[in-house]
Amino acid sequence: MERKEIPYKIYLEENEMPKQWYNVRADMKNKPAPLLNPATKQPMTAQELGVVFCDELVKQELNDTDAYIDIPEEILNFYKMYRPAPLVRAYCLEKKLGTPAKIYYKFEGNNTSGSHKLNSAIAQAYYAKQQGLKGVTTETGAGQWGTALSMACSYFDLDCKVYMVKVSYEQKPFRREVMRTYGASVTPSPSETTEVGRKILAEHPGTTGSLGCAISEAVEVACSTEGYRYVLGSVLNQVLLHQSIIGLETKAAMDKYGIVPDIIIGCAGGGSNLGGLISPFMGEKLRGEKDYRFIAVEPASCPSFTRGKFAYDFCDTGMVCPLAKMYTLGSGFIPSPTHAGGLRYHGMSSVLSQLYHDGMMEAVALEQTAVFEAAEYFARVEGILPAPESSHAICAAINEAKKCIETGEEKTILFGLTGTGYFDMVAYEKFHNGQMTDYIPTDADLQIGFDGIPKFEGNEF
Amino acid sequence: MERKEIPYKIYLEENEMPKQWYNVRADMKNKPAPLLNPATKQPMTAQELGVVFCDELVKQELNDTDAYIDIPEEILNFYKMYRPAPLVRAYCLEKKLGTPAKIYYKFEGNNTSGSHKLNSAIAQAYYAKQQGLKGVTTETGAGQWGTALSMACSYFDLDCKVYMVKVSYEQKPFRREVMRTYGASVTPSPSETTEVGRKILAEHPGTTGSLGCAISEAVEVACSTEGYRYVLGSVLNQVLLHQSIIGLETKAAMDKYGIVPDIIIGCAGGGSNLGGLISPFMGEKLRGEKDYRFIAVEPASCPSFTRGKFAYDFCDTGMVCPLAKMYTLGSGFIPSPTHAGGLRYHGMSSVLSQLYHDGMMEAVALEQTAVFEAAEYFARVEGILPAPESSHAICAAINEAKKCIETGEEKTILFGLTGTGYFDMVAYEKFHNGQMTDYIPTDADLQIGFDGIPKFEGNEF
Repeated sequence: MERKEIPYKIYLEENEMPKQWYNVRADMKNKPAPLLNPATKQPMTAQELGVVFCDELVKQELNDTDAYIDIPEEILNFYKMYRPAPLVRAYCLEKKLGTPAKIYYKFEGNNTSGSHKLNSAIAQAYYAKQQGLKGVTTETGAGQWGTALSMACSYFDLDCKVYMVKVSYEQKPFRREVMRTYGASVTPSPSETTEVGRKILAEHPGTTGSLGCAISEAVEVACSTEGYRYVLGSVLNQVLLHQSIIGLETKAAMDKYGIVPDIIIGCAGGGSNLGGLISPFMGEKLRGEKDYRFIAVEPASCPSFTRGKFAYDFCDTGMVCPLAKMYTLGSGFIPSPTHAGGLRYHGMSSVLSQLYHDGMMEAVALEQTAVFEAAEYFARVEGILPAPESSHAICAAINEAKKCIETGEEKTILFGLTGTGYFDMVAYEKFHNGQMTDYIPTDADLQIGFDGIPKFEGNEF
Repeated sequence: MERKEIPYKIYLEENEMPKQWYNVRADMKNKPAPLLNPATKQPMTAQELGVVFCDELVKQELNDTDAYIDIPEEILNFYKMYRPAPLVRAYCLEKKLGTPAKIYYKFEGNNTSGSHKLNSAIAQAYYAKQQGLKGVTTETGAGQWGTALSMACSYFDLDCKVYMVKVSYEQKPFRREVMRTYGASVTPSPSETTEVGRKILAEHPGTTGSLGCAISEAVEVACSTEGYRYVLGSVLNQVLLHQSIIGLETKAAMDKYGIVPDIIIGCAGGGSNLGGLISPFMGEKLRGEKDYRFIAVEPASCPSFTRGKFAYDFCDTGMVCPLAKMYTLGSGFIPSPTHAGGLRYHGMSSVLSQLYHDGMMEAVALEQTAVFEAAEYFARVEGILPAPESSHAICAAINEAKKCIETGEEKTILFGLTGTGYFDMVAYEKFHNGQMTDYIPTDADLQIGFDGIPKFEGNEF
């Protein structure tokens, strides 16, 4: 491989962009455990899943054998509007840190949704349109996914109903307005518009909501409205499949310049970004072709990998969704209201959970003040004001780069910069004013969530 | 020229990026009139200007002979962090409109400042640093320039004092927070921190401020503080010079694919984006090599080109700055508070004013509800949620593309998409809620501003 001088930003040419998604499950010996019907504890059939999800997406959800799946041309065309995302060499950050490490980041924030979420949103909207549906429902927390889905639905002229976690709805009116610009209807959750919402409101008056709760509402509406299905921005196998575009582009850009990462770092909430970024590299590791260190970075206040249980659990608070085997804090777990930004899901992608369980990757949990310090440092040095979620990866990458200063190792570090923080300035303001606090749940705090994980044969933990 | 298939986005390679700015004044037969000392009515000398501006920037301000000026390497390196900006072929917009026109836009919003303003901010910060200054002062309206300058100052470790028009300071707390992230101090203007601010507050208690007023404050602080100079984000010759990077990149990208625009459109407030975009094309027109139609688009509520006077006027409300010959509504003109977004400056770049006066370009004024309709239409079709300022150019481009539907002409339309609207959601919300109104000043409204334009021999209008 010829060693060319590496530019600040590597953009693939349009004709170099991936035309297939990569399905890492095909290369996993230990496949992720199937979704279970909570009533029967039997694997969900395609027919059962088809009540909630679009048919083609159900196929993708269940497909753990095909390594590559063609990206439909309409989706490729949409990708061309905001992709390829640049792979950036962080020359300025390296210099400022004085590290011998070489740092790269894949920047997914150059689109109006402000994050990588659009990669899967457009795919899910496409398949919904293909099926002749009228619209889709979903939930959103920090608002990135809801924005992405609004954009995708607008492109395909689909109706889009978003249930937005109430605390975010109130703290982020601008996100809501972006979604409205794209024609979506946005309802704060829990709401009076669904049975499960009314139940949660009755049991927990004044609750500020949770992602798990908004999921329950969105699923209920999808299942009870003719011509609608539910779509989800993370956690699911299909989402990781679509997000593999991140890793595939990254790998193509790195291969073009003969760059091989030693460490690959991504923030982890439900796992969509991390899973997408690492997929093709993980494939090489699974096939025994190469070795990489993978690091999942999660908030210390919502530490599903590092302190969760590997068990079957509900994907939602209202317990209307299937059971997924994953690292979970319990579907009743709600992160402290002091927690800023996303990455607040109680569970984790089954694919990533299995890989973590099999020792294929590591995980670290970081406290948010350290994360915001890293965010501000990064913004000043590299110019981009990062999302709080992405800043977890930045912080971990800086920590690894600092280790290289001590050891003198010239490691190549790659991290995912999933998005921008332009709609997170309330959190930045708190940080600037010294009003941001850290919160680490005690074992007793976590036990409440664990107690809610369903007990049945084969679900010991 | 070989006709290659044109991708959705054209990114120049790093080695194809311009290494010199282009100074359109060198090719103008009728040079823009010099800045005058308001006391003597004589052209400002380099020495006089040096009290306010950095020495090297004064040289650039006065240089109307050198067509090309080398971009210092440190600035080139910074440019590499967020440039080249993509030249986008608006395939989706063309299709949606059903126009035979070919539409291109140069997108300058892919950086945290959210606009093209960073192109000049980094240059001005660089020269301030080179001169050994401690810091710079400036004003900001919508906040894009202030954000850009904060980023640039942070990069060069310079202090940055921003006077932000009070109404924007209050309506855009998030912009303020972005500036704070980059370490700038932000003061709402008019303020009690300056003599001119106190004077304006005494005369107009409760005023929401204006750009002209914030300029006066920033200049006062720069001139009265050791080691500080004032910097400006638009209007000045030096700013147009730096912003020529927009047009140079655009032209290089177009030349690469054999594209020749028929119409070039840009929004115009002080003229930085429009001047930068059109400069190299205007050079060809001035040299008689090619012909293009240039269209400046301004808000009907602040119509300096279409309804202003071509005369010497103060650049600021407090009348502490030099006199510039330009299309002006009078330095006392304050746009209606119903006007959303930027492009609210009372005057216009002297370079562009001269070119307009000489019939080298056209101008149109648009009402803001039409502009926001175009903005939302564009967002849904092309994905990018545009800044209100940029949406003026979008609206005009769509109008031209619609004319091509009628005539069947396959014109090539190029416009400048200067930035994103992520910090303008209050305006979008008003638009969604039907609360946005149009305002066209009457001749009597304008007369108040005109009455304030200084009268002296040679300044008849």
